[in-house]
Amino acid sequence: MVKKLLLLCTLFAGASLYAAEAIKPIPQHVPVDARKAALGKRLFFDTQLSKDNTISCASCHDLQNGGDDGMRFSFGIGGQEGKINAPTVYNSVFNFRQFWDGRAKDLKEQALGPITSHIEMGESLDTLVQKIEHIGDYRRKFETLYSDGVTADNIADALAEYEKTLITPNAPFDRYLQGDMNAISQKAKEGYRLFKFKGCIICHNGMNVGGNLYNKFGIFSDVNSSSLGRYHVTGRESDKYVFKVPSLRNVALTAPYMHDGRCKTLREAIVLMSQYQLGRHMTPEEIDAIEAFLKTLTGEMPPSAKVK
Amino acid sequence: MVKKLLLLCTLFAGASLYAAEAIKPIPQHVPVDARKAALGKRLFFDTQLSKDNTISCASCHDLQNGGDDGMRFSFGIGGQEGKINAPTVYNSVFNFRQFWDGRAKDLKEQALGPITSHIEMGESLDTLVQKIEHIGDYRRKFETLYSDGVTADNIADALAEYEKTLITPNAPFDRYLQGDMNAISQKAKEGYRLFKFKGCIICHNGMNVGGNLYNKFGIFSDVNSSSLGRYHVTGRESDKYVFKVPSLRNVALTAPYMHDGRCKTLREAIVLMSQYQLGRHMTPEEIDAIEAFLKTLTGEMPPSAKVK
Repeated sequence: MVKKLLLLCTLFAGASLYAAEAIKPIPQHVPVDARKAALGKRLFFDTQLSKDNTISCASCHDLQNGGDDGMRFSFGIGGQEGKINAPTVYNSVFNFRQFWDGRAKDLKEQALGPITSHIEMGESLDTLVQKIEHIGDYRRKFETLYSDGVTADNIADALAEYEKTLITPNAPFDRYLQGDMNAISQKAKEGYRLFKFKGCIICHNGMNVGGNLYNKFGIFSDVNSSSLGRYHVTGRESDKYVFKVPSLRNVALTAPYMHDGRCKTLREAIVLMSQYQLGRHMTPEEIDAIEAFLKTLTGEMPPSAKVK
Repeated sequence: MVKKLLLLCTLFAGASLYAAEAIKPIPQHVPVDARKAALGKRLFFDTQLSKDNTISCASCHDLQNGGDDGMRFSFGIGGQEGKINAPTVYNSVFNFRQFWDGRAKDLKEQALGPITSHIEMGESLDTLVQKIEHIGDYRRKFETLYSDGVTADNIADALAEYEKTLITPNAPFDRYLQGDMNAISQKAKEGYRLFKFKGCIICHNGMNVGGNLYNKFGIFSDVNSSSLGRYHVTGRESDKYVFKVPSLRNVALTAPYMHDGRCKTLREAIVLMSQYQLGRHMTPEEIDAIEAFLKTLTGEMPPSAKVK
């Protein structure tokens, strides 16, 4: 009751109030079809989705490791190195588009990309469907859940349904937003103040603390980047070096950082963003505080992430 | 010589240097086909482009009045009121997309929108082409400049070619960026410092001080908006209330402000942006200074804007 009153006061006090904050808590659940999600989970961990049966979605999106693989670039079939840093799969359902260049509109559209990429899983959709159809248990599950059985579209759908379950609620910062003023340290509170004050929040906001707009990598200085970002999607000059602003949820677990993994640590990432995107110098104390804040964005891993 | 050395020093000093600034000067010229632009100019001012011969492009994009009409919403044929604030045509060639919701990829794609909108100029493309073809002088010019003569596509092309000439170089702020440290007042310099320091520049940057990305109207609080912005283009929930960040070039001349013209003055616009987009309070002195800075973005009207 006291807690509720406190929350109510906070809501109306106008200070650090949830209603006026630009960051919103992750919900406890997202509606999913549990049976399709279970099928998607099996697919997510199945290396048979790759051409040579060595790579699964989970190879690069390690659910015990922040939802990515901790490498600058991932390795696909035949030891081929990718060209872009694997983003975390956690909370990706809340991103406004998928991939660094936003070329997929949702998780379902994203799912077949890595499977068919010749440097990632390298499998053709025809062969994939044949493979899955030949596994009786898979075939029966698909036929139960989808009127048209095993199709590439249904494989993508099941994978997407599973990925929707990969959300991480109850991060200390979310509990703070919801009124638990002791959920984060004084230093993290100072970091959040700086995160707003310095302007980080102008791009990193919403439920995913990012993932809801595009911006140019390098507003204040040209950056060397091998990837041209959205230019690859649209072919427009103005889209060169434009990327989806990444989510900062669980960012403490997803080093290295940037689309090309150029920053090994959170501190490096803070310094680089500050310089390239905000045109600002940050003191070591300010960096410390912002780092402390970012660490409060680590949520609870969902039960669905456990490998059984 | 001294000026050049000074510029060189400024460039290397790292303080207020052009190379590291996120705002770039407007160039003196943009390549255009002068003959097509001249034809486009005639079309731009021609009320025959509207169904009832009362409205021209220039009716809502008054070149002597900042390139818009100074009204909250413009009036189209038959006294119909529009639903969105007419943006300035000046420097629109530098915007990454056209219209508030970015639905046109360039000026040419934009040009036919208002002509065919039933509440703006209300003309069908077929009738328009017939009308223009029946005017001998127009027909001859089109036939000289375009192998296929008068077509809707060529009308759009000529209009776009003219609009490319509507750029406003040599604003005091651009001269300041190029090394003339006395081009703007001390107050405007303080305003520019605040514009960066408060975070305005994170969205309003590049050559047009805006016009190069989309963002949500209302990051820090929900705003009442009759227009859903890019949602009308994409139909995606995440695009509700997302608009192209407008250019601030010549902003002192283009009141009222926002996509719905809700702010009558620059001060109101600064306060609203500060509150909705930055979650900040600004003092009256800070607002004064930012206003002074914004006024330095008024450039020189190009010779092509003169009505002869």
